[in-house]
Amino acid sequence: MTNNLPIGVFDSGVGGLTVAKEIMLRLPKESLLYFGDTARVPYGNKSEETVITYSRQIARFLCSHEVKAIVIACNTASAFALDTLAAEFPVPVIGVVKPGAKAAAAKTAKGRIGVIATSGTIKSGLYERYLASINPELKVFGKACPLFVPLVEEGLTSDSVTKMMAERYLTPLLSEGIDALVLGCTHYPLLTDVIGEVCGPGVALVNPAYETAKELSELLSEKNLLKTDDTPAAHRFFVSDGEEQFRRFADTILPCELEEADVNRMVLS
Amino acid sequence: MTNNLPIGVFDSGVGGLTVAKEIMLRLPKESLLYFGDTARVPYGNKSEETVITYSRQIARFLCSHEVKAIVIACNTASAFALDTLAAEFPVPVIGVVKPGAKAAAAKTAKGRIGVIATSGTIKSGLYERYLASINPELKVFGKACPLFVPLVEEGLTSDSVTKMMAERYLTPLLSEGIDALVLGCTHYPLLTDVIGEVCGPGVALVNPAYETAKELSELLSEKNLLKTDDTPAAHRFFVSDGEEQFRRFADTILPCELEEADVNRMVLS
Repeated sequence: MTNNLPIGVFDSGVGGLTVAKEIMLRLPKESLLYFGDTARVPYGNKSEETVITYSRQIARFLCSHEVKAIVIACNTASAFALDTLAAEFPVPVIGVVKPGAKAAAAKTAKGRIGVIATSGTIKSGLYERYLASINPELKVFGKACPLFVPLVEEGLTSDSVTKMMAERYLTPLLSEGIDALVLGCTHYPLLTDVIGEVCGPGVALVNPAYETAKELSELLSEKNLLKTDDTPAAHRFFVSDGEEQFRRFADTILPCELEEADVNRMVLS
Repeated sequence: MTNNLPIGVFDSGVGGLTVAKEIMLRLPKESLLYFGDTARVPYGNKSEETVITYSRQIARFLCSHEVKAIVIACNTASAFALDTLAAEFPVPVIGVVKPGAKAAAAKTAKGRIGVIATSGTIKSGLYERYLASINPELKVFGKACPLFVPLVEEGLTSDSVTKMMAERYLTPLLSEGIDALVLGCTHYPLLTDVIGEVCGPGVALVNPAYETAKELSELLSEKNLLKTDDTPAAHRFFVSDGEEQFRRFADTILPCELEEADVNRMVLS
């Protein structure tokens, strides 16, 4: 019965856990099969070709375990590989970029939207394209923030250095008069406080993880794919490196605690 | 004729170019065959097992192109994979850790040495072990500096944020009274100015790239492996991703200019 299969979620590493978390909160009955490509993280500075190759390997792995849908929880992989995976695999595939763009378009009053993300996502111009397809009048200002991920992974989420870098990254966007800002990398929602402080109350922050969980829920409902049996959710996690480190990080983010046996190593090629 | 084969040099990415540069300056006649694993960079937060697997793949690739020696230009790979590669491959293998440790032991007067590196290198404790084998009385203080690599790759080598992070990372070492500091990651020599400013003139900075080139030169001479013919040096570079980005970075570091044809993509598995 397709409805009771898990939902596949993948990311370049641990960042996609912010998406897994939002899905668990919104769809608490659903089981997730998560793949984090921790051996090859980060994707943000890799070429389109390489990111597509890796994403395809992961989607193949998820489908070999039978999933009813695939969520690309990595902005860079969504930007580069969504169309390829959607065309090649037999299950619905959604990425984080489209739902994030939709929410930003709904939230801006002035039609001026900022997007912060990795270099790969910014260079791909995908947020711009989605936003233009929603409303060609929107003005979009992108800014790569390569230090945000290492700052989060160092645990400096509310540190003075992070504040300094946030000011430096965000000032050019603020001076363009944006009133909505897409946190276009899975790690960035963990910097919401610092980013919110720098931006002030006049800028609506958009968390694509939250919007993706919402869109996933609508999609499953539309396609009659919501779970029907009453077994509790059972999540499984695969990483390509560093199981223990992953488990510790997951425990700080997810609304459930992971056992050692829940996280396994899987090397793809 | 073995003498006229190139020297294999490998790194997790672009950082090893600081080692390639020192070899080019010291042994200008020798040709290099460089492999940068830019698709899987960084190694610093990967497990020992994964770093050994990747290093073995690269050594196999270098040997398939016939090299007369292998230089592991990555501190993490030197820390984890040097013994394995030295045992498994038929050519001399040297890493950057041992020469760096030797130079630090020679430079300290107080017997108190600091080591800054990636988390992987620090956790491996390899610098400590080498230093203890040289002189068990030496006191070694290690500190992982995970933000230094992204700061260098963002071009912030002499920025106030970098200075702040350097102060934060180095203060605990300075308060231990060190008088020598090993720059134990290939990117760190590019931060020599900032690090030197924070440490002051009482701390000798050790650049393992420089020391490795010196040791390589002695090793080749000892084993009668120095190049004998008079053809000019011809270097070749292979990367697992982002040839163009690599070439641009290489042009800012190396004493020679690279043509497009000099850099090729090679995906290993």
